[in-house]
Amino acid sequence: MSNADLSLVDAYWRAANYLSAGQIYLMDNPLLTEPLAPEHIKPRLLGHWGTTPGLNFIYAHLNRVIRDRDLDVLFVTGPGHGGPALLANTWLEGTYSETYPDVPRDGDGMRRLFRQFSFPGGVPSHVAPEVPGSIHEGGELGYSLAHAFGAAFDNPGLIVACVVGDGEAETGPLATSWHAGKFLNPQRDGAVLPILHLNGYKIANPSLLARIPHDELDALLRGYGYAPRYVEGDEPDAMHATMANVLDEVIDEIHRIKGTTERPTWPMIVLRSPKGWTGPSEVDGKPVEGTWRAHQVPLAGVRDNPSHLRQLESWLRGYRPDELFDADGTPRPELAALVPDGPHRMGATPHANGGLLLRELKMPGIRAHATEVVKHGTTHSEPTRVLGRMLRDVITLNADARSFRIFGPDETASNRLDAVYDVTGKQWQAETLSVDEHLVPDGRVVEVLSEHLCQGMLEGYLLTGRHGLFNCYEAFIHIVDSMFNQHAKWLKTHKKLAWRRPVASLNYLLSSHVWRQDHNGFSHQDPGFIDHVMNKKAEVVRVYLPPDTNTLLSVADHCLRSKDYVNVIVAGKNETPDWLDVDEAVLHCTRGAGIWEWASNDEDEPDVVLACAGDAPTVEVLAATKLLREHLPSLRVRVVNVVDLMRLQPDTEHPHGMPDREFDALFTTDKPVIFAYHGYPWLIHRLTYRRANHHNLHVRGYKEEGTTTTPFDMLVLNDMDRYRLVIDIVDRVPGLGPKAARLRQHMQDQRARHHAWIREHGEDLPEVRDWTWQ
Amino acid sequence: MSNADLSLVDAYWRAANYLSAGQIYLMDNPLLTEPLAPEHIKPRLLGHWGTTPGLNFIYAHLNRVIRDRDLDVLFVTGPGHGGPALLANTWLEGTYSETYPDVPRDGDGMRRLFRQFSFPGGVPSHVAPEVPGSIHEGGELGYSLAHAFGAAFDNPGLIVACVVGDGEAETGPLATSWHAGKFLNPQRDGAVLPILHLNGYKIANPSLLARIPHDELDALLRGYGYAPRYVEGDEPDAMHATMANVLDEVIDEIHRIKGTTERPTWPMIVLRSPKGWTGPSEVDGKPVEGTWRAHQVPLAGVRDNPSHLRQLESWLRGYRPDELFDADGTPRPELAALVPDGPHRMGATPHANGGLLLRELKMPGIRAHATEVVKHGTTHSEPTRVLGRMLRDVITLNADARSFRIFGPDETASNRLDAVYDVTGKQWQAETLSVDEHLVPDGRVVEVLSEHLCQGMLEGYLLTGRHGLFNCYEAFIHIVDSMFNQHAKWLKTHKKLAWRRPVASLNYLLSSHVWRQDHNGFSHQDPGFIDHVMNKKAEVVRVYLPPDTNTLLSVADHCLRSKDYVNVIVAGKNETPDWLDVDEAVLHCTRGAGIWEWASNDEDEPDVVLACAGDAPTVEVLAATKLLREHLPSLRVRVVNVVDLMRLQPDTEHPHGMPDREFDALFTTDKPVIFAYHGYPWLIHRLTYRRANHHNLHVRGYKEEGTTTTPFDMLVLNDMDRYRLVIDIVDRVPGLGPKAARLRQHMQDQRARHHAWIREHGEDLPEVRDWTWQ
Repeated sequence: MSNADLSLVDAYWRAANYLSAGQIYLMDNPLLTEPLAPEHIKPRLLGHWGTTPGLNFIYAHLNRVIRDRDLDVLFVTGPGHGGPALLANTWLEGTYSETYPDVPRDGDGMRRLFRQFSFPGGVPSHVAPEVPGSIHEGGELGYSLAHAFGAAFDNPGLIVACVVGDGEAETGPLATSWHAGKFLNPQRDGAVLPILHLNGYKIANPSLLARIPHDELDALLRGYGYAPRYVEGDEPDAMHATMANVLDEVIDEIHRIKGTTERPTWPMIVLRSPKGWTGPSEVDGKPVEGTWRAHQVPLAGVRDNPSHLRQLESWLRGYRPDELFDADGTPRPELAALVPDGPHRMGATPHANGGLLLRELKMPGIRAHATEVVKHGTTHSEPTRVLGRMLRDVITLNADARSFRIFGPDETASNRLDAVYDVTGKQWQAETLSVDEHLVPDGRVVEVLSEHLCQGMLEGYLLTGRHGLFNCYEAFIHIVDSMFNQHAKWLKTHKKLAWRRPVASLNYLLSSHVWRQDHNGFSHQDPGFIDHVMNKKAEVVRVYLPPDTNTLLSVADHCLRSKDYVNVIVAGKNETPDWLDVDEAVLHCTRGAGIWEWASNDEDEPDVVLACAGDAPTVEVLAATKLLREHLPSLRVRVVNVVDLMRLQPDTEHPHGMPDREFDALFTTDKPVIFAYHGYPWLIHRLTYRRANHHNLHVRGYKEEGTTTTPFDMLVLNDMDRYRLVIDIVDRVPGLGPKAARLRQHMQDQRARHHAWIREHGEDLPEVRDWTWQ
Repeated sequence: MSNADLSLVDAYWRAANYLSAGQIYLMDNPLLTEPLAPEHIKPRLLGHWGTTPGLNFIYAHLNRVIRDRDLDVLFVTGPGHGGPALLANTWLEGTYSETYPDVPRDGDGMRRLFRQFSFPGGVPSHVAPEVPGSIHEGGELGYSLAHAFGAAFDNPGLIVACVVGDGEAETGPLATSWHAGKFLNPQRDGAVLPILHLNGYKIANPSLLARIPHDELDALLRGYGYAPRYVEGDEPDAMHATMANVLDEVIDEIHRIKGTTERPTWPMIVLRSPKGWTGPSEVDGKPVEGTWRAHQVPLAGVRDNPSHLRQLESWLRGYRPDELFDADGTPRPELAALVPDGPHRMGATPHANGGLLLRELKMPGIRAHATEVVKHGTTHSEPTRVLGRMLRDVITLNADARSFRIFGPDETASNRLDAVYDVTGKQWQAETLSVDEHLVPDGRVVEVLSEHLCQGMLEGYLLTGRHGLFNCYEAFIHIVDSMFNQHAKWLKTHKKLAWRRPVASLNYLLSSHVWRQDHNGFSHQDPGFIDHVMNKKAEVVRVYLPPDTNTLLSVADHCLRSKDYVNVIVAGKNETPDWLDVDEAVLHCTRGAGIWEWASNDEDEPDVVLACAGDAPTVEVLAATKLLREHLPSLRVRVVNVVDLMRLQPDTEHPHGMPDREFDALFTTDKPVIFAYHGYPWLIHRLTYRRANHHNLHVRGYKEEGTTTTPFDMLVLNDMDRYRLVIDIVDRVPGLGPKAARLRQHMQDQRARHHAWIREHGEDLPEVRDWTWQ
């Protein structure tokens, strides 16, 4: 690389550093056309300088190699709290002003760029959805590399340059994400180029990877399957030359790997540079550059401390802004020579605004797979097994588009979706043996025993404009609670930005759920993810509890077509009565909740409402109804089933919410309601506490009781079995007379009989195992 | 090692394998004294055979080395779903029958051991709290190594042998836990001996680490800081010999390391053995031993399939049970020769029943650190900074006992607890540089940027009988939602087992909370951990929201002394008005909720109740009260503050819950209640929906609005600012007349004035920043 090119890269880097520091400190006088004065300084100094110069260094060098080689690069900023860097670079390359014309690429725009940063009404301090070119916020650390691999899947022409901070590298999710290379097909997928940025420090501590011997670090990265190249130092000229050479080498190596079929050892870069590089080396006699003290704002109290103010001015002038910007603040034309062509600018890549690339998922329709239901509740099927067949067809229909993937922590077969293996396999780039099944170098299913990695790869895949499904045991989806939070927050902001186009929803299929983890025991029993999801913005989250096979197909069909949501589907894999035929299922799911007339005998005037949400509760409610018909035939019972949990809320709280009139029409305003719910019962109260009939609502659900036992015993332990529901009715419906007491005792006797049988025989009574509605 | 010894280990291993398979299959005929018949077989075959023979192999060899060298070993079973192995081994060594005398070590006991496994009313299929010698359930994978390191801290004589499953090894938390060696002091702490068990498969897939080249695996483990030794094969005799040698070597090496002060490279073992080793090699023509098909029950349908029944019998007889057990089922005396002495048996170690070792934490009392409060709300202090001083004294008082540690993801100083560094440092075994501060080889603070690792190490530390605190940013504690679930489930079961003695509570201090992450923005704003915690059993969970410094001291003092709970304390680090002097604080915290008479003017007859929980809401409620005194002096306002959130529930729901009469006395039965709450508002509804006055309750809280802005703007964005609270009152208290409309408009104007100022100046108005109550 020529010296001129290196000088250009250095100038570009200085410009980005100047613009970064300017954002943290200045609300006026952006070009330092007058001596810096306290009134030019922001009252609250917020931002993270420490990681920023390193990010700027990488970005400038990537620009050079993109320009020289016409590459397609997506930049993932692991240390996303270095927001000023990405804002500076996108402004410099022009993409920021194209996205936000009110922040033009001139002096006025520079003032706005500076002022808006971390300023009320302005832009966040981190790389948030507002930043062009980003699919990754660095607020909560650990997910950059998973996002990068997700983005690279099925994008053979793409290189995802992923900066991994050395703080972030200590997190669990990041530590296991290195292994994702074992799922990347060199020919059919893109490349991920990890750049481990060792700047040595976190908030107040050194980082672990910066403080182990070189040999150990090198072994670790080789052990993860990479061939690391090192760019280490603090002298800019030497660092520029090394970085440029190394980048050329790794791009060559990526091209070489993509041209062979050998098992790849992917290249990566270790950049060891000072934290807060080029910033103040000392402040008040204490070292800052190259230490953790550079993490956020290296010079504090600048408004009130004249010496700090002078130090800031000299630091900023040290970048020689007059060489970098015209008198009106426009970047000098020579800097533009480093900027890649229009869409190759990293702030302009459509991969970071996936909605631009999104193609509708081709759907097979649900009728081909629907279960035939001649009489309600007389046949059985395994809902997720049937769904697996529909997903198989989704895979087939979208095979050419290569736009749909299923992720899971080794549970796709356990969750009975294995029909998908008729047409695809599990992507796998490690060794295979003859006993292996369905492992292929290029498959639509990605399985790795890390819910974090599954979630992160799926997020990266979706945000770059593709479709997908995460299937998981219900209890263990809590492992990604925090990742869900961050994705839901991202979507909330994303939806408000007109330039960000809608992306496919993040779909969770939670199976092997709380009621059927009787065999694995208490640790596997937790329906609380639904509660967790409900805390996020109503415009983003949806929760579905289809009670049988055809409703599951209808819900899944809807969710896979939807955009910009997080959809949670909880569905069983075990044999379940088929309640609704396909037409009824579609209608019921469209309504989200409704009266099951065929199971009711209330003739519009119920004595009691028996409501249910979830497959296991629905069986118990129907079984209770059958018991009531036998023992209290004159009792008018209405059965209400809820598929779309959000329907229970008022329409003022959620777009799917029911108006009071509609709710009252289902649940009455004055009759007892016994509600059997899949999860923790208090959620139903939370959703309905403003309804007229709330005081009559009695909810049964999972109350954190369980062990290794039988499915029916799980219901009994949690007081949600059919007999208990009948007792609840007897206790709450007035005027039942002496029959009530006898029925109550009979139900108690039944519970005792089951209890004794189960403990004697180790399984449920045949009358439960073979139960049907009619 | 002699051939006799190897034969003994093999016999012991066969016995454990026999007992393991017996548990999975048999409900009767445990000694195969008659031909195996369908009625001897359990109706539901539940359990995990695959990992079990490997666990038995390791356990037997550890017995040998413990016996030979008189070691103190704690066994951590990463693949805890291999429950049969630990049950078999503790029964064989006698500790099971000592713990559960109804399962004696004879033929009758063996029948009970078999029958109870995964059987209703029996014991869970995983290594649950019911298993003697265990601190770790393997239900949710990923935490074994973190638990092991936590157990090893401050136990210099202990070796924690931690079996890491190769499935588990794919998880994020496990992947980063390898680094925990960088926090272990070879002299002052115990040793952790990781045994990576590569049996090659998960549920339906090969494991990653079993399918990478040997060199890559070796590099990975060396990169993590270990010197791996390999025990690989499937031929028992050779494997026994190798394992025995390797174990002798690693124990020698551990002793050598503990005798030097060099930076250690700890030994570890890689055991590569077939999944389902010694089980059926083929079933129905398909390979099983050594494949994923051995994961759970290798032979299915044994009751109904005579050929499988015969295969099972021949498999079981292959262990030659008549050589292993007397005619009455007692293990033969020669097996006893391998069992270590009483308390050295791994099922008997007191470290796995930490309550036995627990010493009360010496507490300094809160008065020495309490803030002087002469007049309510006129001075300010930083609650967590003052708490830091109390924690410093806790550290000093318990320095000799070495029984208290603080864990955190690099946020201890950020959370302003840094007074602790006056007397201790951050434990650190990697390189140090001159700029570093507080890094020491032997410190009471453990900081690593992995919330998973912090939580896991703390759990291990507590369950082995010590005390601790986890301090974390509030939003990111969601990262360990799932780990909290598992620990709370563990505690629920632990509390029911009389032989398990109480352990110290798991204490969370969540600071840098939602209302003061204005600078970091939306990704850092999430108060939902409280909601998550509330789903677990009432007897285990506690949540405290101290509104100021002295209440924080009182709450922390209480939590640190408590046993068997999970305590969540949410407290601010920023300057907060001092509301209560130390006596008032203790009284208020003891009550958990109460009327603040000094802030009320209701004279027992309020027109409105203003309630608050949390420090930021308390300030706004008091500020609203002040506005009301100015603008509506005749309005009788009662201020209620809630510290202990559980008080809001009925006493039927939680041990801390208030009876209705008490609740009504605070909140009235008929007056409007405006409740400003720290977190998501619906939680307050969930806790109070059965109260008489619930229909009058209006809750303000965080509703998922936020960005990088000012603290007061955060309140305005979420409608919890003082002006909005006054508007809420005006809108809800009847009969205020025309003054109400004027006040409403005035409050709107104030909000607009603040909004405009903040957007103009980038900071809050001085009247907010310097606000005091009086």
